[in-house]
Amino acid sequence: MDTVQLEGKLADLRAWTPTQCTIARALDVVGTRSAILIMREAHYGTTRFDEFARRVGITEAVAAARLRELVDAGLLVKEPYREPGQRTRHEYQLTDMGRDLLPALTALMQWGDAYLADGKPPLVLTHAGCGAPVHAEVRCTEGHAVDLPDILVAPRPRR
Amino acid sequence: MDTVQLEGKLADLRAWTPTQCTIARALDVVGTRSAILIMREAHYGTTRFDEFARRVGITEAVAAARLRELVDAGLLVKEPYREPGQRTRHEYQLTDMGRDLLPALTALMQWGDAYLADGKPPLVLTHAGCGAPVHAEVRCTEGHAVDLPDILVAPRPRR
Repeated sequence: MDTVQLEGKLADLRAWTPTQCTIARALDVVGTRSAILIMREAHYGTTRFDEFARRVGITEAVAAARLRELVDAGLLVKEPYREPGQRTRHEYQLTDMGRDLLPALTALMQWGDAYLADGKPPLVLTHAGCGAPVHAEVRCTEGHAVDLPDILVAPRPRR
Repeated sequence: MDTVQLEGKLADLRAWTPTQCTIARALDVVGTRSAILIMREAHYGTTRFDEFARRVGITEAVAAARLRELVDAGLLVKEPYREPGQRTRHEYQLTDMGRDLLPALTALMQWGDAYLADGKPPLVLTHAGCGAPVHAEVRCTEGHAVDLPDILVAPRPRR
């Protein structure tokens, strides 16, 4: 079987609906193309409003709306900075919540690299410490690589 | 610095634009909420048109359009089946391309679990082999856990 294993009361898919799904909640926050690409840019080090708009390829109106949403949701913080002789501007920095999108962004990139890049992924990610290629993986906390049918999905026990 | 390390000609963000970005290409295919949630369902074992619509919470028209796009893009295959006394129906099964979204889906779920579940994630994912919790992680192929500033991003060398 090429699916996860649903346990207990989850086993009959017709008997439940995933109303509290945290994938869906994640998509409430980063479920638009522009939100994900702005977060990509923040991981690259983009901090300025006009650079987010230019590099993501969106209008300043869309960039302003999306950055405001991402700040409100807690993925970015907006901080003032001032260069000599210039007026005060703002820059956007990743929060812990924003940084923790790294596995999702890396996973999307490697999926795109594998299937949508005509065999020529544009970028290479390597580990600064040892030079080996970097991947997003699914593992258990014991360190075992885990494939789809090896995953048990159960309701969280009530305390 | 809380970003990846951009190498070589990528180091000056103002000097390049991520036109070939495979995160963006991935979002061309799975960049809608309904596409991601249909893929979640396929990982759970949902196969039937009406169950995709019901469990994702979308109209049959949206489900039909999205399933067609996901089949055309290669993430699902549509296969006929027939129960005794019924007319022929179709079911949707994951392809390798669809299965390989597992790290992205797992990463989105754990991010939602961490930040958007009020401390009460609804589901628990464990490894069938050893019972340990399952996570999406960023690692290098040497097995080192990799954090954001440990990642070098470089242009892929031309052959």
